[in-house]
Amino acid sequence: MNEKKGAILILSGPSGCGKSTLLKEVYKDIADYYFSISTTTRDPRVGEKDGVDYFFVTKEEFEKDIENGDFLEYAKVHDNYYGTSLKPIKKALEDEKLVIFDIDVQGHEIVRKKLDSIVTSVFITTPSLKVLESRLNSRNTDSKEIIEKRIKNAKGEVEYFQNYDYLIINDNLEIAAKQLVCIANIARIKSKLFDKSKIISTWLEN
Amino acid sequence: MNEKKGAILILSGPSGCGKSTLLKEVYKDIADYYFSISTTTRDPRVGEKDGVDYFFVTKEEFEKDIENGDFLEYAKVHDNYYGTSLKPIKKALEDEKLVIFDIDVQGHEIVRKKLDSIVTSVFITTPSLKVLESRLNSRNTDSKEIIEKRIKNAKGEVEYFQNYDYLIINDNLEIAAKQLVCIANIARIKSKLFDKSKIISTWLEN
Repeated sequence: MNEKKGAILILSGPSGCGKSTLLKEVYKDIADYYFSISTTTRDPRVGEKDGVDYFFVTKEEFEKDIENGDFLEYAKVHDNYYGTSLKPIKKALEDEKLVIFDIDVQGHEIVRKKLDSIVTSVFITTPSLKVLESRLNSRNTDSKEIIEKRIKNAKGEVEYFQNYDYLIINDNLEIAAKQLVCIANIARIKSKLFDKSKIISTWLEN
Repeated sequence: MNEKKGAILILSGPSGCGKSTLLKEVYKDIADYYFSISTTTRDPRVGEKDGVDYFFVTKEEFEKDIENGDFLEYAKVHDNYYGTSLKPIKKALEDEKLVIFDIDVQGHEIVRKKLDSIVTSVFITTPSLKVLESRLNSRNTDSKEIIEKRIKNAKGEVEYFQNYDYLIINDNLEIAAKQLVCIANIARIKSKLFDKSKIISTWLEN
């Protein structure tokens, strides 16, 4: 009866909600995952590495991949493209991994529609908009203009949290990390992940 | 933004799936719960206590309560009534507790329909029908006739697992317990539990 297949965990939340810090905190406690690296046309921030934080490509390269149907999802945010290449995801799911996505609300809508039965999703946010603003200002990696764009975007994104399975208010790192580890560890036992007719016939015959 | 309210965790699974043992194992690790005690007209099994395992009542008393609308859900299984009284559940939800139900697939359908946004549900089962039969035979609490009825019932119940959020195959007590604790601990952060318009206005203004 232990029919296994891969599952998908989608994390979204405004820039500055503490998603990256949270992820670094929980990786050691999540079994057998594959972290999906997004492709983007935006410039790398200080300290970001190609192939680690993102695959950084030109606008021309990105648009060619769109034409070839190589993206599971993609979107234009803050005048830049962000997308998820299809091939590594397929491979990871075949290898029965938990595929973790850090994508925005638009990406979530698309992946949910395409792969609903294997998706668990979490919206991560700060306790308030003021906390978000102060975090964005204190990290000193973006210009004033970019911060303003991120805040405007965050105001729009928060509208979408009820389309997600879970809401984590990232106020206390320890609590948020425990919640995220729990969600990751049970993402594989969602009942929709199991093939009904196969499960039932196997269960009855064994 | 930490708007709190109660949540419901429904556990179902055939008699003999190990649900009771599993529950005893995990209670210490679940915060602030209220275990809903069902009311039944069936005879107590060896060791069962009134007000602990069930509220044991007569058929006449049960039918009077049905007439008075005192049940959240009830059903007739194996020629006996089983039901959930409404009042203690309302009180526990107001007290922001996690209300845990051990009810059958019919009860799950009804509670889900009535209280969908606050429900998380888990179907617990043995690895196979043979394992279930051997567990029922080895516990020596029921007659042959009752065991046969339970098995017949289990064959029907397994059809319903995909209406549940999670499927736990209770093969290894330690693993199953960890999964159940995780589900219980995140049942309170289901995004549907949060009042959307309230959350958004509070988030924007603070």
